[in-house]
Amino acid sequence: MTDRVREILSWYGSDSPGTLTNLARLLRHGRLGGTGRLVILPVDQGFEHGPARSFSGNPAAYDPRYHFRLAIEAGCSAYAAPLGFLEAGAREFAGEIPLILKANNRDSLLEEKDPAQALTGSVEEALRLGCVAIGYTIYPGSSHRLEMYEELRAVAEEAKRAGLVVVVWSYPRGQALSKEGETALDVVAYAAQIAAQLGAHLVKVKLPSAHLEQESAKKAYEAAKVPKDSLADRVRHVVEATFSGRRIVIFSGGAKNADDAVLAEAKAIREGGGFGSIIGRNSFQRPKADAIALLRRIMDVYAA
Amino acid sequence: MTDRVREILSWYGSDSPGTLTNLARLLRHGRLGGTGRLVILPVDQGFEHGPARSFSGNPAAYDPRYHFRLAIEAGCSAYAAPLGFLEAGAREFAGEIPLILKANNRDSLLEEKDPAQALTGSVEEALRLGCVAIGYTIYPGSSHRLEMYEELRAVAEEAKRAGLVVVVWSYPRGQALSKEGETALDVVAYAAQIAAQLGAHLVKVKLPSAHLEQESAKKAYEAAKVPKDSLADRVRHVVEATFSGRRIVIFSGGAKNADDAVLAEAKAIREGGGFGSIIGRNSFQRPKADAIALLRRIMDVYAA
Amino acid sequence: MTDRVREILSWYGSDSPGTLTNLARLLRHGRLGGTGRLVILPVDQGFEHGPARSFSGNPAAYDPRYHFRLAIEAGCSAYAAPLGFLEAGAREFAGEIPLILKANNRDSLLEEKDPAQALTGSVEEALRLGCVAIGYTIYPGSSHRLEMYEELRAVAEEAKRAGLVVVVWSYPRGQALSKEGETALDVVAYAAQIAAQLGAHLVKVKLPSAHLEQESAKKAYEAAKVPKDSLADRVRHVVEATFSGRRIVIFSGGAKNADDAVLAEAKAIREGGGFGSIIGRNSFQRPKADAIALLRRIMDVYAA
Amino acid sequence: MTDRVREILSWYGSDSPGTLTNLARLLRHGRLGGTGRLVILPVDQGFEHGPARSFSGNPAAYDPRYHFRLAIEAGCSAYAAPLGFLEAGAREFAGEIPLILKANNRDSLLEEKDPAQALTGSVEEALRLGCVAIGYTIYPGSSHRLEMYEELRAVAEEAKRAGLVVVVWSYPRGQALSKEGETALDVVAYAAQIAAQLGAHLVKVKLPSAHLEQESAKKAYEAAKVPKDSLADRVRHVVEATFSGRRIVIFSGGAKNADDAVLAEAKAIREGGGFGSIIGRNSFQRPKADAIALLRRIMDVYAA
Amino acid sequence: MTDRVREILSWYGSDSPGTLTNLARLLRHGRLGGTGRLVILPVDQGFEHGPARSFSGNPAAYDPRYHFRLAIEAGCSAYAAPLGFLEAGAREFAGEIPLILKANNRDSLLEEKDPAQALTGSVEEALRLGCVAIGYTIYPGSSHRLEMYEELRAVAEEAKRAGLVVVVWSYPRGQALSKEGETALDVVAYAAQIAAQLGAHLVKVKLPSAHLEQESAKKAYEAAKVPKDSLADRVRHVVEATFSGRRIVIFSGGAKNADDAVLAEAKAIREGGGFGSIIGRNSFQRPKADAIALLRRIMDVYAA
Repeated sequence: MTDRVREILSWYGSDSPGTLTNLARLLRHGRLGGTGRLVILPVDQGFEHGPARSFSGNPAAYDPRYHFRLAIEAGCSAYAAPLGFLEAGAREFAGEIPLILKANNRDSLLEEKDPAQALTGSVEEALRLGCVAIGYTIYPGSSHRLEMYEELRAVAEEAKRAGLVVVVWSYPRGQALSKEGETALDVVAYAAQIAAQLGAHLVKVKLPSAHLEQESAKKAYEAAKVPKDSLADRVRHVVEATFSGRRIVIFSGGAKNADDAVLAEAKAIREGGGFGSIIGRNSFQRPKADAIALLRRIMDVYAA
Repeated sequence: MTDRVREILSWYGSDSPGTLTNLARLLRHGRLGGTGRLVILPVDQGFEHGPARSFSGNPAAYDPRYHFRLAIEAGCSAYAAPLGFLEAGAREFAGEIPLILKANNRDSLLEEKDPAQALTGSVEEALRLGCVAIGYTIYPGSSHRLEMYEELRAVAEEAKRAGLVVVVWSYPRGQALSKEGETALDVVAYAAQIAAQLGAHLVKVKLPSAHLEQESAKKAYEAAKVPKDSLADRVRHVVEATFSGRRIVIFSGGAKNADDAVLAEAKAIREGGGFGSIIGRNSFQRPKADAIALLRRIMDVYAA
Repeated sequence: MTDRVREILSWYGSDSPGTLTNLARLLRHGRLGGTGRLVILPVDQGFEHGPARSFSGNPAAYDPRYHFRLAIEAGCSAYAAPLGFLEAGAREFAGEIPLILKANNRDSLLEEKDPAQALTGSVEEALRLGCVAIGYTIYPGSSHRLEMYEELRAVAEEAKRAGLVVVVWSYPRGQALSKEGETALDVVAYAAQIAAQLGAHLVKVKLPSAHLEQESAKKAYEAAKVPKDSLADRVRHVVEATFSGRRIVIFSGGAKNADDAVLAEAKAIREGGGFGSIIGRNSFQRPKADAIALLRRIMDVYAA
Repeated sequence: MTDRVREILSWYGSDSPGTLTNLARLLRHGRLGGTGRLVILPVDQGFEHGPARSFSGNPAAYDPRYHFRLAIEAGCSAYAAPLGFLEAGAREFAGEIPLILKANNRDSLLEEKDPAQALTGSVEEALRLGCVAIGYTIYPGSSHRLEMYEELRAVAEEAKRAGLVVVVWSYPRGQALSKEGETALDVVAYAAQIAAQLGAHLVKVKLPSAHLEQESAKKAYEAAKVPKDSLADRVRHVVEATFSGRRIVIFSGGAKNADDAVLAEAKAIREGGGFGSIIGRNSFQRPKADAIALLRRIMDVYAA
Repeated sequence: MTDRVREILSWYGSDSPGTLTNLARLLRHGRLGGTGRLVILPVDQGFEHGPARSFSGNPAAYDPRYHFRLAIEAGCSAYAAPLGFLEAGAREFAGEIPLILKANNRDSLLEEKDPAQALTGSVEEALRLGCVAIGYTIYPGSSHRLEMYEELRAVAEEAKRAGLVVVVWSYPRGQALSKEGETALDVVAYAAQIAAQLGAHLVKVKLPSAHLEQESAKKAYEAAKVPKDSLADRVRHVVEATFSGRRIVIFSGGAKNADDAVLAEAKAIREGGGFGSIIGRNSFQRPKADAIALLRRIMDVYAA
């Protein structure tokens, strides 16, 4: 147990020892164990984008065991996936990597202006599979947001009673937002704040651009001269918006990208005080050896 | 225990000793303890307006501990906030200030003509966090009002069984009302009546203007010659509409304003028989020392 | 215990001794105790019409205790009100007057073509407050009617298990009906039948006009030559439609009216075999002494 | 116990002895007891069509006891009615006639293109009233059909656990069907199949016409040369569609009609292998003596 | 117990011994017992298409016992049907054939652009009837898909707790898809992936065409050069999309077809690594002897 992990645990004074134990498992696992930084492997793209778009470029990844092995071999902090993918490996790899049950999902056969997700997992299932955490996506900006917040409340309350960690993917979307607005600095900071207010232990957002979406927010940013030119500045602002950094906030990369771009993002996250990355398509869509190499370079950035 | 507190408790004859104990805690705490008046610090703006609009002018306020300290140092009667903000300080400040869990919330990334809120907290969470009360917003005038009343019924019934106090934010909004109508005297008085009929122990409304919104109400006001020229007159009418003053009704200020304006409002509330103020943006958006100074001047008005 | 009360109780052969005990309490209380007739004071207008329209003409009525005292002093059979009003007096006046918790309500800040109500009370709350009965409004003719019937079913079933009496306000409204149709003879008789079929012990309807609203009904009325010229005739028809008079059916007056008009209605109700009146605005909107005098004259009509 | 009743019971091999006991009560009661045929008196018209349309032609029928007596004196197999009507006689006539609680209902103050019904009774109420069965209406063809099937599933599952018989009124209606289509042979046969697949013990449909509504079905009927010219042919087809006659299926008559027409229908039902009739308006809208005479003549047809 | 069955069971490491026992029953029953291949008889067409379209060409099939016998005599792996059909034979044929309760259904009296199904069975009913599995249909592509996924989650979770196998019919439909798209290769593979991610033990899809429906998928298929010219290629891709073949996936044929066509499909399924067929209309719409002969020839293909 390092001082940094102890410090982070101290921020969660209202949680049970059970939840702190699982949070410590997350923070102490893998190559970044004890540093207070996290690199998580998430694989919900089979559900979200379809199997061929996700795995046909690297067909080994059709096999659910592939991702357990990738996360374990690369030394990730945790592996997050929907029910089916976890069920297909949880016994074989029991105890080898902290698991996060991604408890709601959507597919892209039908796209709707105001998206929602379906609850596809539960706290009871997470416990059955030996998970340390439950993951839940909200879409601030969608007309379905209020139902999503309510469902998250119920899931999170039950998870905390069961000693699980609550991870919230907060992805602004829907009729209220322009495409550019979905990653605007004000919107991403707001999304992080909402997740934290809803009781998330760990918040996942997208990397913000320098765009400001809402008129009312723009005035505040200008008045306060919030720095936003560099990515590190913007990460710093999002970390501040997440309870002054007293809630763990990590960033997701998005579509497959060149190694250098991914590493540059990790550096900016570290510089801005972010807690780490969640790297999906940039890991499992590469050949395994390449993916492991890249993940380790990312971890080296955070460990530095 | 003062006579005034005993008198106020006597109005709640259908409540359990458990609820009266928590109500007494509210009424006996802070600089106004025992006077029968209340000044409450509410901080749900991070959720409702976003973090930058709420806190970038006073960045210390991004930290959830800031608000606990502000409420404690200023001698407020209570501190009200959503789940996340309370979780982030409830252990550290346990027993130092009565807490109110604001159990429903909405954000402003999407604005709808007929607003609603999401249930983001629960009675069980309020008990876990050591709260004395649960807070709930209703929007009379919105097409979602009936579901909100029903949800409040369930929450309030459970809260009373658990010995908690029920605080209702009654904010008229929605397709039926003009912007001016949201704070019209008839509408605010009606909103206070609805909250009281729904079983609120403590009602929070906005300060009413002299405008009258509904034709049918206008006739009644004119026939009865209800005084409404001064703010104190209007407060008096709202207090009367809240069961002849036998339910605690407090008033919220709204956007950040000059000190004198805020103090003038407090004087009118006191003169009209109101029970106090709930001061959010006019406290935490000022530097802490200024905020404490202003809050104390407001309390001095009520204590006079 | 009078023969008439025994006779009325005999109609409720499927109810428990608990419910019959509470029904007997209603029938044996006040100046009409034992006669089989009822005059009930209902005060839900603060919620339904707003406080100023309801009480500003007689400001003493803002105080919830006022109505308990009015019902007690006038010798009413029972006092019916929403949760908040009952909570504010149930301990002080415990045992002095049978109470009916009006368990659903709506306000008039927003008017919708097809109205509904919100559940604002419960059987458990009615028991907590010492009530003998629970009251519930349905709106036959509204597109929300089916949900209302279903909710009533659940509430009524629970109330009967708890030994409470079920009182149904059956007020036809909504897109299917003309304004005149809401009080048409066929519609009121139908509304009374629906309430009785839903298992109400006591049905409350409006006084019917001679108008016939539905074409299909008109034929039946003409073929059967149902008398409908006098108010007493129409009351008699409604009583017949309420299980041949084997369910208690009472009539509400409506807006404030001259004493003579109110008394004339009571006489017609008695002549037609109705079981009594529910007198709201014609009681609490008068000065208390006048109200008591009028209520007693009404009771004298029924006792005659 | 007759061989025919034993045979019928043998079709229900998945049901508990409790349900078989109640089914045997139905099949062994009244003038047709033991024959395997049924004539049931249903009186939900007060709710469905209104009291005057239902009873003003025979005012004795306003009294709920009238229908118990009619069913008992005529020797019917059972009496089916909504909650209110059953509550008003279940104690007085306890044990004299098998009762069916009609657990969902609708009124006709508002007619909608896609009709639904409200749940107005429950298994627990059916048990309280001593019923042998619970009745439930579905509207195949209505946009609300799926919710109705789901609600029926829940009610039927609970009823079977409680040892009750499940009777399903399967009445096609809604936007998908022409008026003529509601009684088309293909549609009625389909409606009977749906009810049986949903687990009904006893299915009630309308008498089918020779019309075929659905193009896709028409081809099948023509290819298979399904006889449909006579009413008996059509009844035979519906019986076949109800699990080859291994579920009890009975037919309802509809509006009041001349005695000869009613008897001719009964003969066709018997000839086609139907299990009996459910006779509402053609019984209680006649003077009692006439109704009993007609019901007995119908029973004589079935007993022949 | 064969090695192949042991291997298949090994893929389900997160399931209880109870579920594995029932899965083994499925895999060890009938003429294909022990081969790891399955031929299942499903008969929900009476509900889905109506009785005459389903059974009038072979009237013996109106009788629910017919299908039990057909499945038993042909040596099928299991028989799947809605509640009513199973109830009508489960005792008589208890222990003779594994049963799958098809727990949701829809009829075709009303067709909607975005279809849904009604829950018509339950885990408790499946246990009562001695079933080894519960079957559930989802419609990816329909606007109702999210509710269907959520309902499936609840049913599947309960089924697994009860030791049942979960079979998911994954049939893409709805506004988002062209008619051709419903069986497009990308769409069928995606549907199989969704079912597997939702935790299905056994997935049933339609045989895919070479069409590609979604632009975003088309790019991936072209980039990866996924073979799709032969039916076996396409089956192989779907098997891969179903967790690299670590979940059982079977294929349904559809409308009645010539024997050769049906056999050719079976060969392609076997060649592509599929686990078997579900043969409804091509079995029970033939005379029984013909159907048994065809089913045996299909099984011979798989056993080869």
